[in-house]
Amino acid sequence: MALDNANETGGLKLYVDLGSQPARAVTIFCRVNKIEAHEIGVDLRKLENRTPEFRKINPMGLVPCIDDHGFKLHESHAIMRYLATTHNVADHWYPKDPQKRALVDAALDWHHLNLRKYGSQLVINRVLVKVPAHKNFFPNLGEETRKSLADDASKTLPQILDALELMLEHGKFLHNADLVSIADLSLCCELTQLQDDHKNMLEHRKRITTWMADVKDATNPEFTDVHQAIFNYSKHVEELRAQGNFF
Amino acid sequence: MALDNANETGGLKLYVDLGSQPARAVTIFCRVNKIEAHEIGVDLRKLENRTPEFRKINPMGLVPCIDDHGFKLHESHAIMRYLATTHNVADHWYPKDPQKRALVDAALDWHHLNLRKYGSQLVINRVLVKVPAHKNFFPNLGEETRKSLADDASKTLPQILDALELMLEHGKFLHNADLVSIADLSLCCELTQLQDDHKNMLEHRKRITTWMADVKDATNPEFTDVHQAIFNYSKHVEELRAQGNFF
Ligand SMILES: N[C@@H](CCC(=O)N[C@@H](CS)C(=O)NCC(=O)O)C(=O)O
Ligand SMILES: N[C@@H](CCC(=O)N[C@@H](CS)C(=O)NCC(=O)O)C(=O)O
Repeated sequence: MALDNANETGGLKLYVDLGSQPARAVTIFCRVNKIEAHEIGVDLRKLENRTPEFRKINPMGLVPCIDDHGFKLHESHAIMRYLATTHNVADHWYPKDPQKRALVDAALDWHHLNLRKYGSQLVINRVLVKVPAHKNFFPNLGEETRKSLADDASKTLPQILDALELMLEHGKFLHNADLVSIADLSLCCELTQLQDDHKNMLEHRKRITTWMADVKDATNPEFTDVHQAIFNYSKHVEELRAQGNFF
Repeated sequence: MALDNANETGGLKLYVDLGSQPARAVTIFCRVNKIEAHEIGVDLRKLENRTPEFRKINPMGLVPCIDDHGFKLHESHAIMRYLATTHNVADHWYPKDPQKRALVDAALDWHHLNLRKYGSQLVINRVLVKVPAHKNFFPNLGEETRKSLADDASKTLPQILDALELMLEHGKFLHNADLVSIADLSLCCELTQLQDDHKNMLEHRKRITTWMADVKDATNPEFTDVHQAIFNYSKHVEELRAQGNFF
């Protein structure tokens, strides 16, 4: 990464680590919509987001964030809403119709304390903390607590996935729509994280797996390109697991 | 409550329990802006939100939610954005300017996994689970887990309040504004919940206490009216505590 150089470049700057779900969503959104953004990698595993330098861009120290000619913004959903409004982006991504928009907003709002909270609680505590490269990244909470957090998440996720199925009841995409929105993209990018290690949670849910394939189709080849980092990562986890000392 | 009768009434219907932070925010927003809404009480402690009847209005089983002439919407932030757009509401509540709006959106998005998550984690586990009237409402996680969740929340909240102070650095209200927005209202309604039992977390933070007073001033008398329920509730907790078997 070259945060220093990046600060001197004009234009729209997008700070991301493609291992991060919200960062992947924003990156796919920009690439699919041909929004010219200068993508700047912030390596979370190297704690590049916890430097005073990065905090000048996002005081919260999180990716994704943008700097649009000096206007600094964080939170993936706010970023996608903003870019959809200020760039030439097809209406279906974030519809102007108040009721359609409200349903996209509701799905985005719902996401945080449901799919995102419990999805990351599961993946972090059951998989990510065991990967040696993450040693410095996660606080040491102890094996016991990690296990109980993972168990809590795997008990709660099925209800959340039930709710997601309800939200997909009346259309190809979220909330009765025929075309993809920023809500589909955000939620789907969270679920791709569950795919490998928690296939059993998803594979019998036809409505969800069909929807995920539809979101991918609607945003390919960018969707697949941007996910390369976590696909490679899954391979790494597989190797660790094959060495027998993972779980 | 009369959900049955309510279903037969026309107009905008707002389903709330004023013990709920997001329900209070939406109620204050409607009352201050003279949005004619038929307020329908859903008593969470009586589990009125977990009936099949209520799930027809919000399949997630949560308050707040609205039914606007047949259009059903949940999630407090999505509801306030929608009502600000479809009613005659002053611009400062949810500014049309894309950058101002983006900052309001970012604060609303940030809220979920920060102030809301840890604020409710603290209040639920340290106070609410000990109130006999809530016996049926919260799952039985055991004393030990409740304590460790409350401790985790009280360790994390100071960092979150630091972040909130940063967000209040350049203006009277959130993100450089002179006038109140739906983000100020949502975040402030979460903090009112911490006021009584966790005064020590807030009282030395002048920037936050001043801002809370400003939000209250900008939305009174409705702010105080709507909070009456939790002020009474705090008295009830005080009485339980005085009986000596609370903490
Ligand atoms: N709600 C935020 C979440 C951002 C977030 O949690 N980012 C994580 C990566 S997924 C991060 O930057 N973590 C760095 C850290 O915790 O130090 C959004 O949607 O943008
Ligand atoms: N993110 C939602 C949160 C709604 C929510 O969590 N409501 C709670 C009360 S604060 C509820 O209805 N709980 C009922 C239950 O859990 O059964 C919003 O902002 O509206």
